[in-house]
Amino acid sequence: MANHVITLTTDFGEGSPYVAAMKGVILAINQDAKIIDISHSIPPQDIQAGAFAWEETTKWFPEDTIHVGVVDPTVGTNRRILLATFDNQHYIAPDNGLLTGVARAAFTRRIIDVTDPAFWLDEVSATFHGRDIMAPVAAHLSLHGEPERFGDPTDEMVALDLAIPRFNPDQIVGCVVSIDSFGNLITNITTEMAKGFSRKKLVIRCKNCEIQGLTRTYGDGQMGELVALLGSSQKLELAVVGGHAAREMDCPLGESVIVEW
Amino acid sequence: MANHVITLTTDFGEGSPYVAAMKGVILAINQDAKIIDISHSIPPQDIQAGAFAWEETTKWFPEDTIHVGVVDPTVGTNRRILLATFDNQHYIAPDNGLLTGVARAAFTRRIIDVTDPAFWLDEVSATFHGRDIMAPVAAHLSLHGEPERFGDPTDEMVALDLAIPRFNPDQIVGCVVSIDSFGNLITNITTEMAKGFSRKKLVIRCKNCEIQGLTRTYGDGQMGELVALLGSSQKLELAVVGGHAAREMDCPLGESVIVEW
Amino acid sequence: MANHVITLTTDFGEGSPYVAAMKGVILAINQDAKIIDISHSIPPQDIQAGAFAWEETTKWFPEDTIHVGVVDPTVGTNRRILLATFDNQHYIAPDNGLLTGVARAAFTRRIIDVTDPAFWLDEVSATFHGRDIMAPVAAHLSLHGEPERFGDPTDEMVALDLAIPRFNPDQIVGCVVSIDSFGNLITNITTEMAKGFSRKKLVIRCKNCEIQGLTRTYGDGQMGELVALLGSSQKLELAVVGGHAAREMDCPLGESVIVEW
Repeated sequence: MANHVITLTTDFGEGSPYVAAMKGVILAINQDAKIIDISHSIPPQDIQAGAFAWEETTKWFPEDTIHVGVVDPTVGTNRRILLATFDNQHYIAPDNGLLTGVARAAFTRRIIDVTDPAFWLDEVSATFHGRDIMAPVAAHLSLHGEPERFGDPTDEMVALDLAIPRFNPDQIVGCVVSIDSFGNLITNITTEMAKGFSRKKLVIRCKNCEIQGLTRTYGDGQMGELVALLGSSQKLELAVVGGHAAREMDCPLGESVIVEW
Repeated sequence: MANHVITLTTDFGEGSPYVAAMKGVILAINQDAKIIDISHSIPPQDIQAGAFAWEETTKWFPEDTIHVGVVDPTVGTNRRILLATFDNQHYIAPDNGLLTGVARAAFTRRIIDVTDPAFWLDEVSATFHGRDIMAPVAAHLSLHGEPERFGDPTDEMVALDLAIPRFNPDQIVGCVVSIDSFGNLITNITTEMAKGFSRKKLVIRCKNCEIQGLTRTYGDGQMGELVALLGSSQKLELAVVGGHAAREMDCPLGESVIVEW
Repeated sequence: MANHVITLTTDFGEGSPYVAAMKGVILAINQDAKIIDISHSIPPQDIQAGAFAWEETTKWFPEDTIHVGVVDPTVGTNRRILLATFDNQHYIAPDNGLLTGVARAAFTRRIIDVTDPAFWLDEVSATFHGRDIMAPVAAHLSLHGEPERFGDPTDEMVALDLAIPRFNPDQIVGCVVSIDSFGNLITNITTEMAKGFSRKKLVIRCKNCEIQGLTRTYGDGQMGELVALLGSSQKLELAVVGGHAAREMDCPLGESVIVEW
């Protein structure tokens, strides 16, 4: 178990010395831990973006992976820190909604309120629990397992009201929940929701654009064409072939996307 | 062999969740793999930039390293996926020219057309073969070797027409092929090509600038001076000492650079 | 010792192929080395920023960690390369002041002038000693220890004049030494210096702003409020709750911060 995978997801920015400090703390406790960066590009204090990033990525990791997430605007107040075991993976995060995405996909859940300072750094700052509490808890968990050693079981957890599409008689009204580095617009309308409808007869609307039918992959459209497809995250996605949909459509996060049939 | 090095090079952007998903898939198959990021800052869909990045970097890695490259604008169409063994390293990439740079430097080559789905994820999306095909193929190769298990040998491979300098009687006409984070302009004119000429008598022209002779290193010029030197990539390079040549000369990729004697 | 931690800190930019080349060189010598990125976002050629980054982060790493730092504007001139052992960690860096921060915190120090080319790459370029000298020295040190094998002991080392606050009868005059990704302004006024003063009676001035008293953590202020607190780096820090102090105050690095009582 010593070569446990520990992932890090924060809003500190790529290349932040705060991330480096967390890695140092982990390796000083378990030098064999395998630290993997999921992302440090979560927009500052954007808990929802962090929740989506975990929902997209953590499911691909091996059993028993320990995921540490630090998007923590209320650090040092009375907000709790949780160690949640969802199915066969562990999550250490502030109790501010960051767990919402991975919690809703889980079949089994066990949550510990992290309260035992025996596993924390000797001095705990008021402003950086990622380094002083979450990193050492992750490192100790990677060595010995047993989440219950870190505090008391709890049933409660803050949950975000993550945008869920609305179903009308002949349409689904969703929205853009993330924009990737290619400018593709990822929506909250899932492949599951679109099932049973003819791919060709759907009409997708976003801002003042209208798309007829779904495309299978980017390369099936013409250069510069706006297409809609069911993407690799199992979600409806709008893309400009060879272009940058978010910029060309001037489309922000949260923008409505309507599917009609 | 289990602690095999697997490198990743993509145009997904630093901190992209797509990269994290690929790492998860690799570790779920071989938890001992040593994953190294070469770069995720290849400009979106810029296959030539990816080819140059591989040419510059992969030669430094140990024998038997497995390099995965995902700059893949035609993902999901009928473009092939190749597993190429050049000299003693392995490359997994879409067959779109990404292999051009490392192929032209290789003494021995063996190429497999990756066609056996036994080693892919159970569900393969139409838009993310980096995660669904290339990452698992890399992980399985790191465990058991034997590239030929993954498909059939092939002799063909898409090659880019990478810019090669033109030789005139008393000049070489090349161009800027990359710009580094210091703003230094890296050209396609190699140290080899410049051999046999007096360092002092050369004249280098780019845009409306003219440089007399070559400098040995940055610190040998005056602050703010534009110098030309044979850089660490064995290529002619233009730099402003303590400054940012690309910005100060307003010089884009592809700009002509002329060496006269 | 083979799974030694080797950290990298450079001004090459995240995703730079120069960083990848250094990793390749290290792994080709010691494939078991555990390479950790501290940061590649040090502003180009900003030795002082590199010195601060090391001071903040390296202390968290395990004993015997090897830290390689490449902020090296005078590469290839007669500036030396040093291998310094401060307390129980090793630092490999150009002798240009990059070691200043970690040196001033050290109880014990032993410094080697890296001169023996037996441990370098066969061909050493004039412009990239990070790859050709520092990376291989780090890799060989991780395999066999014994810093004295790499050159001769030396007592001298270039030291930067890092900004130290000025003490007046009823005030401390410091300055902003770094700005983090949240826009928080980190000063050179330490928790130690602020000891013995009443938290509530302090007045902190920066640009045309005045803050009454210290806050314990960000979440204790109102959204949009400018607060001062003793941060996780044991330094006085100015922050806008839920905002970006550097942008909102238009405050650059080096700006004066005055504490009065």
